[in-house]
Amino acid sequence: MPQEDGIKDKETLIIQSARKRFAYYGFSKVTMDEIAGDVNMGKASLYYYFPTKEDLFKAVISQELNELQKNIELILQQPSSASDKLKSYTEKRMEFFKKLLNLGTLSVHVYNDTKSLFKNIFLDFADVELNIIKKIIEEGKQKKEFNAELSDDTAVVFLHILQGLRCNLLRWSKGQNIDDEAQENLQKEMIIATEIFIYGIKNK
Amino acid sequence: MPQEDGIKDKETLIIQSARKRFAYYGFSKVTMDEIAGDVNMGKASLYYYFPTKEDLFKAVISQELNELQKNIELILQQPSSASDKLKSYTEKRMEFFKKLLNLGTLSVHVYNDTKSLFKNIFLDFADVELNIIKKIIEEGKQKKEFNAELSDDTAVVFLHILQGLRCNLLRWSKGQNIDDEAQENLQKEMIIATEIFIYGIKNK
Repeated sequence: MPQEDGIKDKETLIIQSARKRFAYYGFSKVTMDEIAGDVNMGKASLYYYFPTKEDLFKAVISQELNELQKNIELILQQPSSASDKLKSYTEKRMEFFKKLLNLGTLSVHVYNDTKSLFKNIFLDFADVELNIIKKIIEEGKQKKEFNAELSDDTAVVFLHILQGLRCNLLRWSKGQNIDDEAQENLQKEMIIATEIFIYGIKNK
Repeated sequence: MPQEDGIKDKETLIIQSARKRFAYYGFSKVTMDEIAGDVNMGKASLYYYFPTKEDLFKAVISQELNELQKNIELILQQPSSASDKLKSYTEKRMEFFKKLLNLGTLSVHVYNDTKSLFKNIFLDFADVELNIIKKIIEEGKQKKEFNAELSDDTAVVFLHILQGLRCNLLRWSKGQNIDDEAQENLQKEMIIATEIFIYGIKNK
Protein backbone atom coordinates (compact mmCIF):
# COMPACT_ATOMS: atom_id res chain seq x y z
CA MET A 1 0.00 0.00 0.00
CA PRO A 2 1.34 3.41 -0.88
CA GLN A 3 1.81 5.87 1.95
CA GLU A 4 -0.68 8.72 2.29
CA ASP A 5 2.17 11.22 1.99
CA GLY A 6 2.90 12.16 -1.57
CA ILE A 7 -0.27 10.60 -2.94
CA LYS A 8 -0.91 13.69 -5.07
CA ASP A 9 2.61 13.52 -6.47
CA LYS A 10 2.25 9.86 -7.35
CA GLU A 11 -1.12 10.52 -8.94
CA THR A 12 0.33 13.33 -11.01
CA LEU A 13 3.16 11.11 -12.18
CA ILE A 14 0.76 8.34 -13.17
CA ILE A 15 -1.49 10.74 -15.06
CA GLN A 16 1.52 12.24 -16.88
CA SER A 17 2.73 8.84 -17.93
CA ALA A 18 -0.73 7.70 -19.01
CA ARG A 19 -1.26 10.88 -20.97
CA LYS A 20 1.96 10.37 -22.91
CA ARG A 21 1.20 6.73 -23.65
CA PHE A 22 -2.42 7.35 -24.67
CA ALA A 23 -1.30 10.17 -26.94
CA TYR A 24 1.32 7.98 -28.58
CA TYR A 25 -0.37 4.59 -28.77
CA GLY A 26 -4.05 5.39 -28.24
CA PHE A 27 -6.20 4.36 -25.30
CA SER A 28 -6.94 0.79 -26.33
CA LYS A 29 -3.31 -0.24 -26.95
CA VAL A 30 -1.93 0.93 -23.60
CA THR A 31 -1.83 -1.51 -20.67
CA MET A 32 -1.84 -0.79 -16.95
CA ASP A 33 1.37 -2.86 -16.71
CA GLU A 34 3.18 -0.42 -18.99
CA ILE A 35 2.04 2.56 -16.99
CA ALA A 36 3.02 0.86 -13.72
CA GLY A 37 6.44 0.25 -15.26
CA ASP A 38 6.81 3.89 -16.29
CA VAL A 39 6.34 5.09 -12.73
CA ASN A 40 8.29 2.24 -11.05
CA MET A 41 5.24 0.95 -9.30
CA GLY A 42 3.71 -2.46 -8.81
CA LYS A 43 0.48 -3.10 -10.64
CA ALA A 44 -1.35 -3.52 -7.30
CA SER A 45 -0.16 -0.07 -6.19
CA LEU A 46 -1.26 1.46 -9.48
CA TYR A 47 -4.73 -0.06 -9.00
CA TYR A 48 -4.85 1.57 -5.58
CA TYR A 49 -4.79 4.96 -7.31
CA PHE A 50 -6.80 4.00 -10.38
CA PRO A 51 -8.92 0.86 -10.10
CA THR A 52 -9.42 0.68 -13.88
CA LYS A 53 -7.81 2.01 -17.04
CA GLU A 54 -11.03 3.93 -17.63
CA ASP A 55 -10.60 5.73 -14.30
CA LEU A 56 -7.11 6.70 -15.30
CA PHE A 57 -8.39 7.87 -18.63
CA LYS A 58 -11.01 9.99 -16.91
CA ALA A 59 -8.25 11.62 -14.85
CA VAL A 60 -6.29 12.37 -18.04
CA ILE A 61 -9.35 13.93 -19.68
CA SER A 62 -10.09 15.98 -16.56
CA GLN A 63 -6.56 17.34 -16.67
CA GLU A 64 -6.91 18.21 -20.35
CA LEU A 65 -10.17 19.98 -19.55
CA ASN A 66 -8.47 21.95 -16.77
CA GLU A 67 -5.91 23.14 -19.27
CA LEU A 68 -8.61 24.01 -21.78
CA GLN A 69 -10.36 26.01 -19.07
CA LYS A 70 -7.19 28.00 -18.34
CA ASN A 71 -6.71 28.59 -22.06
CA ILE A 72 -10.19 29.86 -22.70
CA GLU A 73 -10.21 31.99 -19.58
CA LEU A 74 -7.07 33.68 -20.89
CA ILE A 75 -9.05 34.72 -23.97
CA LEU A 76 -11.11 37.03 -21.77
CA GLN A 77 -7.96 39.00 -20.89
CA GLN A 78 -6.95 39.57 -24.50
CA PRO A 79 -7.15 43.14 -25.82
CA SER A 80 -8.99 41.95 -28.95
CA SER A 81 -12.59 42.54 -30.07
CA ALA A 82 -15.41 40.35 -28.75
CA SER A 83 -15.72 38.85 -32.26
CA ASP A 84 -12.08 37.80 -32.22
CA LYS A 85 -12.52 36.40 -28.73
CA LEU A 86 -15.39 34.20 -29.89
CA LYS A 87 -13.24 33.02 -32.80
CA SER A 88 -10.37 32.24 -30.41
CA TYR A 89 -12.77 30.30 -28.22
CA THR A 90 -13.87 28.13 -31.17
CA GLU A 91 -10.22 27.54 -32.11
CA LYS A 92 -9.14 26.52 -28.58
CA ARG A 93 -12.12 24.20 -28.38
CA MET A 94 -11.26 22.58 -31.70
CA GLU A 95 -7.62 22.13 -30.68
CA PHE A 96 -8.75 20.42 -27.50
CA PHE A 97 -10.92 17.91 -29.36
CA LYS A 98 -8.15 17.26 -31.83
CA LYS A 99 -5.91 16.41 -28.89
CA LEU A 100 -8.60 14.12 -27.49
CA LEU A 101 -8.76 12.43 -30.86
CA ASN A 102 -5.05 11.77 -30.60
CA LEU A 103 -5.56 10.23 -27.20
CA GLY A 104 -7.70 7.70 -28.99
CA THR A 105 -10.91 8.72 -27.30
CA LEU A 106 -13.09 10.26 -29.90
CA SER A 107 -15.26 7.23 -30.46
CA VAL A 108 -18.99 7.28 -30.86
CA HIS A 109 -19.06 5.31 -27.65
CA VAL A 110 -17.42 8.04 -25.65
CA TYR A 111 -19.70 10.77 -26.92
CA ASN A 112 -23.00 9.16 -27.64
CA ASP A 113 -23.33 6.29 -25.25
CA THR A 114 -25.78 7.39 -22.63
CA LYS A 115 -23.90 5.42 -20.03
CA SER A 116 -20.59 6.94 -21.01
CA LEU A 117 -18.17 7.49 -18.16
CA PHE A 118 -17.20 10.79 -19.70
CA LYS A 119 -20.62 12.26 -20.07
CA ASN A 120 -20.71 13.88 -16.64
CA ILE A 121 -17.25 15.36 -17.04
CA PHE A 122 -18.29 17.04 -20.28
CA LEU A 123 -21.65 18.02 -18.84
CA ASP A 124 -19.96 19.84 -15.95
CA PHE A 125 -17.50 21.45 -18.32
CA ALA A 126 -20.33 22.83 -20.46
CA ASP A 127 -21.11 25.22 -17.58
CA VAL A 128 -17.56 26.52 -17.62
CA GLU A 129 -17.76 27.08 -21.37
CA LEU A 130 -21.16 28.70 -21.22
CA ASN A 131 -19.96 31.13 -18.60
CA ILE A 132 -17.07 32.26 -20.77
CA ILE A 133 -19.20 32.63 -23.92
CA LYS A 134 -21.71 34.69 -21.92
CA LYS A 135 -18.95 37.00 -20.76
CA ILE A 136 -17.64 37.51 -24.31
CA ILE A 137 -21.11 38.24 -25.67
CA GLU A 138 -21.88 40.61 -22.79
CA GLU A 139 -18.63 42.45 -23.48
CA GLY A 140 -19.54 42.73 -27.17
CA LYS A 141 -22.95 44.15 -26.28
CA GLN A 142 -21.46 46.71 -23.91
CA LYS A 143 -18.92 47.82 -26.49
CA LYS A 144 -21.77 48.11 -28.99
CA GLU A 145 -19.95 45.61 -31.15
CA PHE A 146 -22.85 43.14 -30.82
CA ASN A 147 -26.56 43.85 -31.07
CA ALA A 148 -27.87 44.97 -27.66
CA GLU A 149 -31.20 43.21 -28.28
CA LEU A 150 -29.69 39.73 -28.39
CA SER A 151 -31.67 37.06 -26.57
CA ASP A 152 -30.26 35.79 -23.28
CA ASP A 153 -30.08 32.38 -24.93
CA THR A 154 -27.55 33.53 -27.52
CA ALA A 155 -24.60 32.05 -25.62
CA VAL A 156 -26.38 28.72 -25.10
CA VAL A 157 -27.30 28.53 -28.76
CA PHE A 158 -23.69 29.22 -29.78
CA LEU A 159 -22.35 26.49 -27.49
CA HIS A 160 -25.03 24.06 -28.65
CA ILE A 161 -24.22 24.76 -32.28
CA LEU A 162 -20.57 23.84 -31.72
CA GLN A 163 -21.47 20.78 -29.60
CA GLY A 164 -24.16 19.85 -32.11
CA LEU A 165 -21.92 19.92 -35.17
CA ARG A 166 -19.65 17.36 -33.52
CA CYS A 167 -22.56 15.30 -32.21
CA ASN A 168 -24.08 15.21 -35.65
CA LEU A 169 -20.89 14.02 -37.31
CA LEU A 170 -20.49 11.22 -34.75
CA ARG A 171 -24.11 10.22 -35.22
CA TRP A 172 -23.56 9.51 -38.92
CA SER A 173 -20.17 7.92 -38.48
CA LYS A 174 -21.58 4.39 -38.21
CA GLY A 175 -19.92 3.53 -34.95
CA GLN A 176 -16.44 4.09 -36.26
CA ASN A 177 -13.99 6.63 -34.98
CA ILE A 178 -13.89 9.66 -37.19
CA ASP A 179 -10.89 9.91 -39.51
CA ASP A 180 -8.63 12.88 -40.21
CA GLU A 181 -10.67 13.96 -43.22
CA ALA A 182 -13.93 13.98 -41.27
CA GLN A 183 -12.18 15.85 -38.46
CA GLU A 184 -10.91 18.52 -40.87
CA ASN A 185 -14.33 18.82 -42.40
CA LEU A 186 -15.87 19.30 -38.98
CA GLN A 187 -13.35 22.04 -38.18
CA LYS A 188 -14.22 23.76 -41.45
CA GLU A 189 -17.91 23.66 -40.56
CA MET A 190 -17.23 25.04 -37.08
CA ILE A 191 -15.23 27.93 -38.51
CA ILE A 192 -17.94 28.78 -41.05
CA ALA A 193 -20.66 28.50 -38.39
CA THR A 194 -18.68 30.73 -36.02
CA GLU A 195 -18.08 33.38 -38.71
CA ILE A 196 -21.72 33.45 -39.79
CA PHE A 197 -22.84 33.50 -36.16
CA ILE A 198 -20.58 36.44 -35.30
CA TYR A 199 -21.71 38.33 -38.38
CA GLY A 200 -25.29 37.55 -37.38
CA ILE A 201 -25.01 39.06 -33.89
CA LYS A 202 -22.99 42.13 -34.88
CA ASN A 203 -24.37 45.62 -34.69
CA LYS A 204 -25.16 46.90 -38.12
CA MET B 1 -52.10 -15.07 -49.15
CA PRO B 2 -53.33 -11.73 -50.41
CA GLN B 3 -53.77 -11.37 -54.17
CA GLU B 4 -51.22 -9.33 -56.06
CA ASP B 5 -53.98 -7.03 -57.27
CA GLY B 6 -54.63 -4.18 -54.92
CA ILE B 7 -51.46 -4.77 -52.89
CA LYS B 8 -50.68 -1.06 -52.96
CA ASP B 9 -54.17 -0.24 -51.73
CA LYS B 10 -53.89 -2.71 -48.88
CA GLU B 11 -50.48 -1.35 -47.97
CA THR B 12 -51.80 2.18 -47.95
CA LEU B 13 -54.68 1.15 -45.70
CA ILE B 14 -52.35 -0.61 -43.28
CA ILE B 15 -50.00 2.37 -43.13
CA GLN B 16 -52.90 4.74 -42.54
CA SER B 17 -54.21 2.64 -39.70
CA ALA B 18 -50.77 2.24 -38.15
CA ARG B 19 -50.10 5.94 -38.40
CA LYS B 20 -53.30 6.79 -36.55
CA ARG B 21 -52.63 4.23 -33.83
CA PHE B 22 -48.98 5.22 -33.35
CA ALA B 23 -49.99 8.87 -33.16
CA TYR B 24 -52.64 8.14 -30.56
CA TYR B 25 -51.04 5.45 -28.40
CA GLY B 26 -47.33 5.67 -29.28
CA PHE B 27 -45.29 3.03 -31.07
CA SER B 28 -44.64 0.70 -28.15
CA LYS B 29 -48.28 0.36 -27.07
CA VAL B 30 -49.70 -0.61 -30.47
CA THR B 31 -49.91 -4.29 -31.42
CA MET B 32 -49.93 -5.88 -34.85
CA ASP B 33 -53.22 -7.58 -33.86
CA GLU B 34 -54.92 -4.23 -33.44
CA ILE B 35 -53.72 -3.02 -36.80
CA ALA B 36 -54.82 -6.27 -38.46
CA GLY B 37 -58.23 -5.76 -36.87
CA ASP B 38 -58.47 -2.18 -38.17
CA VAL B 39 -58.03 -3.31 -41.75
CA ASN B 40 -60.07 -6.54 -41.44
CA MET B 41 -57.11 -8.70 -42.12
CA GLY B 42 -55.70 -11.82 -40.51
CA LYS B 43 -52.45 -11.36 -38.65
CA ALA B 44 -50.70 -13.71 -41.11
CA SER B 45 -51.80 -11.53 -44.02
CA LEU B 46 -50.59 -8.40 -42.23
CA TYR B 47 -47.18 -10.03 -41.73
CA TYR B 48 -47.07 -10.72 -45.46
CA TYR B 49 -47.00 -6.97 -46.04
CA PHE B 50 -44.96 -6.00 -42.97
CA PRO B 51 -42.93 -8.79 -41.35
CA THR B 52 -42.36 -6.75 -38.17
CA LYS B 53 -43.88 -3.77 -36.39
CA GLU B 54 -40.59 -1.98 -37.02
CA ASP B 55 -41.03 -2.45 -40.78
CA LEU B 56 -44.46 -0.95 -40.55
CA PHE B 57 -43.10 1.90 -38.53
CA LYS B 58 -40.44 2.53 -41.15
CA ALA B 59 -43.18 2.73 -43.78
CA VAL B 60 -45.06 5.26 -41.65
CA ILE B 61 -41.94 7.39 -41.22
CA SER B 62 -41.19 7.19 -44.94
CA GLN B 63 -44.65 8.46 -45.68
CA GLU B 64 -44.23 11.32 -43.20
CA LEU B 65 -40.94 12.18 -44.88
CA ASN B 66 -42.61 12.18 -48.30
CA GLU B 67 -45.12 14.69 -46.99
CA LEU B 68 -42.36 16.79 -45.46
CA GLN B 69 -40.58 16.76 -48.81
CA LYS B 70 -43.70 18.02 -50.60
CA ASN B 71 -44.13 20.69 -47.94
CA ILE B 72 -40.60 22.01 -48.13
CA GLU B 73 -40.57 21.88 -51.93
CA LEU B 74 -43.64 24.11 -51.88
CA ILE B 75 -41.61 26.70 -49.97
CA LEU B 76 -39.51 27.21 -53.10
CA GLN B 77 -42.61 28.36 -55.01
CA GLN B 78 -43.57 30.99 -52.42
CA PRO B 79 -43.29 34.65 -53.47
CA SER B 80 -41.43 35.48 -50.22
CA SER B 81 -37.83 36.52 -49.64
CA ALA B 82 -35.07 33.89 -49.39
CA SER B 83 -34.76 34.75 -45.67
CA ASP B 84 -38.42 33.96 -45.11
CA LYS B 85 -38.06 30.77 -47.10
CA LEU B 86 -35.24 29.61 -44.84
CA LYS B 87 -37.40 30.41 -41.81
CA SER B 88 -40.29 28.45 -43.31
CA TYR B 89 -37.98 25.54 -43.91
CA THR B 90 -36.89 25.48 -40.25
CA GLU B 91 -40.55 25.66 -39.18
CA LYS B 92 -41.68 22.79 -41.43
CA ARG B 93 -38.77 20.71 -40.19
CA MET B 94 -39.63 21.39 -36.55
CA GLU B 95 -43.31 20.52 -37.15
CA PHE B 96 -42.25 17.24 -38.70
CA PHE B 97 -40.13 16.24 -35.72
CA LYS B 98 -42.88 17.26 -33.35
CA LYS B 99 -45.18 14.89 -35.23
CA LEU B 100 -42.56 12.14 -34.99
CA LEU B 101 -42.39 12.76 -31.27
CA ASN B 102 -46.14 12.18 -31.10
CA LEU B 103 -45.73 8.92 -32.96
CA GLY B 104 -43.62 7.84 -30.01
CA THR B 105 -40.39 7.55 -31.95
CA LEU B 106 -38.15 10.29 -30.76
CA SER B 107 -36.02 8.14 -28.52
CA VAL B 108 -32.29 8.29 -28.23
CA HIS B 109 -32.32 4.82 -29.67
CA VAL B 110 -33.94 5.90 -32.90
CA TYR B 111 -31.57 8.78 -33.46
CA ASN B 112 -28.31 7.83 -31.91
CA ASP B 113 -28.08 4.08 -32.15
CA THR B 114 -25.64 3.35 -34.90
CA LYS B 115 -27.62 0.27 -35.85
CA SER B 116 -30.88 2.18 -35.95
CA LEU B 117 -33.31 1.03 -38.61
CA PHE B 118 -34.17 4.63 -39.31
CA LYS B 119 -30.69 5.94 -39.85
CA ASN B 120 -30.60 5.24 -43.57
CA ILE B 121 -34.02 6.77 -44.12
CA PHE B 122 -32.88 10.00 -42.48
CA LEU B 123 -29.52 9.86 -44.20
CA ASP B 124 -31.19 9.68 -47.61
CA PHE B 125 -33.57 12.42 -46.66
CA ALA B 126 -30.69 14.73 -45.73
CA ASP B 127 -29.86 14.94 -49.46
CA VAL B 128 -33.38 16.11 -50.22
CA GLU B 129 -33.14 18.77 -47.52
CA LEU B 130 -29.70 19.90 -48.56
CA ASN B 131 -30.84 20.34 -52.12
CA ILE B 132 -33.69 22.61 -51.05
CA ILE B 133 -31.53 24.71 -48.71
CA LYS B 134 -28.98 25.13 -51.51
CA LYS B 135 -31.69 26.39 -53.85
CA ILE B 136 -32.95 28.91 -51.29
CA ILE B 137 -29.45 30.22 -50.58
CA GLU B 138 -28.65 30.41 -54.31
CA GLU B 139 -31.84 32.39 -54.86
CA GLY B 140 -30.89 34.76 -52.02
CA LYS B 141 -27.47 35.31 -53.57
CA GLN B 142 -28.91 36.02 -57.00
CA LYS B 143 -31.40 38.49 -55.59
CA LYS B 144 -28.50 40.14 -53.72
CA GLU B 145 -30.37 39.43 -50.50
CA PHE B 146 -27.54 37.19 -49.31
CA ASN B 147 -23.81 37.81 -49.48
CA ALA B 148 -22.52 36.66 -52.89
CA GLU B 149 -19.22 35.53 -51.33
CA LEU B 150 -20.81 32.81 -49.21
CA SER B 151 -18.91 29.54 -49.10
CA ASP B 152 -20.39 26.60 -51.02
CA ASP B 153 -20.64 24.83 -47.66
CA THR B 154 -23.11 27.35 -46.26
CA ALA B 155 -26.12 25.10 -46.96
CA VAL B 156 -24.43 22.06 -45.40
CA VAL B 157 -23.49 24.05 -42.32
CA PHE B 158 -27.05 25.29 -41.94
CA LEU B 159 -28.49 21.77 -42.20
CA HIS B 160 -25.88 20.42 -39.80
CA ILE B 161 -26.63 23.16 -37.28
CA LEU B 162 -30.31 22.17 -37.22
CA GLN B 163 -29.51 18.45 -37.13
CA GLY B 164 -26.83 19.09 -34.52
CA LEU B 165 -29.03 21.01 -32.11
CA ARG B 166 -31.39 18.03 -31.96
CA CYS B 167 -28.54 15.52 -31.78
CA ASN B 168 -26.99 17.43 -28.93
CA LEU B 169 -30.19 17.52 -26.91
CA LEU B 170 -30.68 13.76 -27.35
CA ARG B 171 -27.09 13.14 -26.34
CA TRP B 172 -27.63 14.74 -22.94
CA SER B 173 -31.06 13.29 -22.40
CA LYS B 174 -29.76 10.23 -20.52
CA GLY B 175 -31.44 7.66 -22.68
CA GLN B 176 -34.91 8.98 -21.98
CA ASN B 177 -37.30 10.36 -24.53
CA ILE B 178 -37.30 14.11 -24.51
CA ASP B 179 -40.26 15.75 -22.81
CA ASP B 180 -42.43 18.63 -23.98
CA GLU B 181 -40.34 21.23 -22.19
CA ALA B 182 -37.11 20.01 -23.76
CA GLN B 183 -38.83 19.91 -27.13
CA GLU B 184 -40.02 23.51 -26.77
CA ASN B 185 -36.58 24.59 -25.68
CA LEU B 186 -35.07 22.92 -28.72
CA GLN B 187 -37.51 24.71 -31.00
CA LYS B 188 -36.57 28.01 -29.37
CA GLU B 189 -32.89 27.31 -30.00
CA MET B 190 -33.57 26.40 -33.62
CA ILE B 191 -35.48 29.61 -34.20
CA ILE B 192 -32.73 31.74 -32.62
CA ALA B 193 -30.04 29.88 -34.58
CA THR B 194 -31.99 30.33 -37.83
CA GLU B 195 -32.49 34.06 -37.23
CA ILE B 196 -28.85 34.66 -36.37
CA PHE B 197 -27.74 32.54 -39.31
CA ILE B 198 -29.95 34.46 -41.76
CA TYR B 199 -28.74 37.78 -40.36
CA GLY B 200 -25.20 36.48 -40.70
CA ILE B 201 -25.47 35.64 -44.40
CA LYS B 202 -27.38 38.75 -45.42
CA ASN B 203 -25.91 41.40 -47.62
CA LYS B 204 -25.08 44.48 -45.62
